[in-house]
Amino acid sequence: MTPDPKLPVCVLGTGLIGGSLVRAATAAGYRVWAYNRSEDGAAAARADGFEVTSDLVGTLHRAAEAGALIVIAVPMPAVGAMLSAIASYAPKCPLTDVVSVKGPVLAAVREHGLAAHYVGGHPMAGTSESGWAATFPELFQGAVWAVGVDEGTHAQPWRRVAGLALDCGSVVVPVVAADHDRAVARISHLPHVLAEALAVSGAAGGPLALGLAAGSFRDGTRVAGTAPDLVRAICEPNATALLEVLDDTLAVLTAARDGLRADGSLADLVEAGHDGRQDYETAQRWEITGVTPGDHGWLEALRDAGQRGGALTELP
Amino acid sequence: MTPDPKLPVCVLGTGLIGGSLVRAATAAGYRVWAYNRSEDGAAAARADGFEVTSDLVGTLHRAAEAGALIVIAVPMPAVGAMLSAIASYAPKCPLTDVVSVKGPVLAAVREHGLAAHYVGGHPMAGTSESGWAATFPELFQGAVWAVGVDEGTHAQPWRRVAGLALDCGSVVVPVVAADHDRAVARISHLPHVLAEALAVSGAAGGPLALGLAAGSFRDGTRVAGTAPDLVRAICEPNATALLEVLDDTLAVLTAARDGLRADGSLADLVEAGHDGRQDYETAQRWEITGVTPGDHGWLEALRDAGQRGGALTELP
Repeated sequence: MTPDPKLPVCVLGTGLIGGSLVRAATAAGYRVWAYNRSEDGAAAARADGFEVTSDLVGTLHRAAEAGALIVIAVPMPAVGAMLSAIASYAPKCPLTDVVSVKGPVLAAVREHGLAAHYVGGHPMAGTSESGWAATFPELFQGAVWAVGVDEGTHAQPWRRVAGLALDCGSVVVPVVAADHDRAVARISHLPHVLAEALAVSGAAGGPLALGLAAGSFRDGTRVAGTAPDLVRAICEPNATALLEVLDDTLAVLTAARDGLRADGSLADLVEAGHDGRQDYETAQRWEITGVTPGDHGWLEALRDAGQRGGALTELP
Repeated sequence: MTPDPKLPVCVLGTGLIGGSLVRAATAAGYRVWAYNRSEDGAAAARADGFEVTSDLVGTLHRAAEAGALIVIAVPMPAVGAMLSAIASYAPKCPLTDVVSVKGPVLAAVREHGLAAHYVGGHPMAGTSESGWAATFPELFQGAVWAVGVDEGTHAQPWRRVAGLALDCGSVVVPVVAADHDRAVARISHLPHVLAEALAVSGAAGGPLALGLAAGSFRDGTRVAGTAPDLVRAICEPNATALLEVLDDTLAVLTAARDGLRADGSLADLVEAGHDGRQDYETAQRWEITGVTPGDHGWLEALRDAGQRGGALTELP
């Protein structure tokens, strides 16, 4: 799909997202190698035929020599250590990440002096499973892959990152870090928080309530099955945006409770919620065209298009 | 599946649940006829080969003559009108319902002097669709069907109702009205309320947020796609139990918000939510045996077994 020759990709972390990226990029024709902290995880990936080691320095030396695109695919708490190693061993490589929050990664990248080569990324894909055993190459097919267009982003690494996302079967939504973090607080982190609260409430009803539970409870609590450490690593780094959305949602729920108590009606909440779900179901993604990375104003043009629901399905 | 000869069934209301019951009971070998308020809905069902009319009095006369089991399958706001008609035209028929709340139906049944023939029912099945066009006979396959064991319930109608549920492919969980209503507030009505609130929050993020939304938002808002009138008819009659659960959930979410603000941690919520989802996933339904309807203490024995996660898969 990308017009460029496929330059190599080096993935740091082979959990669900990173490991699936190793598989997907390999399937798309990239030369791919990867690092995983645990030797057990690396060995499992090698057993499936992929080049994965637990030698971080060696992995990064190879990336530096080959000019590989480095993809950070570890949870937020481990990002700093990866950036330190990259600054030491592969500081000139184009760099992206697949971490679920973008502001804190961008700040850490700037602290490590790597901003000139960095383009943030976040594939909106996942399951409640984790680890190499859960990986599969189709994870990104038909998904949305947020790609950073923050001030100072350079066209060359941007094309590498967007090209990789497209080659893995995703569409690219251009977004700046702050906008991304506010949006995912609403549509990814709040769902986690509400799912956990619903699971708590259901379990408090004991065997009878859990025995009566059907589709609405099953679907509403699905992501509460995700490993707690992973949920925390996804949500807590986005605390600022999440707190704002949580406050809004507490206000919405409190108003609904008060209305139900006062006059037995949930009308306002239910009408607004139905409208919101309709907005989601009928949202039309439109194709961004006519913006060439590197041209005057390209970052602002892409940001604006992303905010209005646009996406790229091929490299401009 | 039932040892008895299959006595006829008369369904009042041919929306998603009632209409699917017409299909399922017919497929299970019952003689079934039904009433639907709208002639258009009745005509659609007749076009599919079922005996459905918009003549309520005629439908009930036929039920009285045949000793049919009458199933009330209208939303709670329309239950009173059905009971008035039944009290006038078929007061001796065994009677059940598939309404999503049980206390208010039981109270209305008692007001109409029909309690001796009544056994509450609630199949825990549904989709976000509604109306005859959405009906299908497999809706109840593998579902849980709550069947009332309230004080004063008689064995004969109980066997008719439980037998119908089993013949439609469900398992039977015996439960009294108050326990049922508290349980479904947790696992059915709270999921609706949280889904609506999540949809509101997502839509407030505009095209960017909705464009980035993936599985957690899609699943978490699914039931917000249900018609608002239907959601209100399901949740509002259970206001008392729902208010209690909403208060609990607001407390849980407020504590999570405060913890996130104070020390950046969602640990308590996420651990408890994960435990709750695990309880749900690992809950083992066990087979209730050795209780014969009509024997001394049968209602208490079935209620106790239901509370402890038991279910019937055949008529005792």
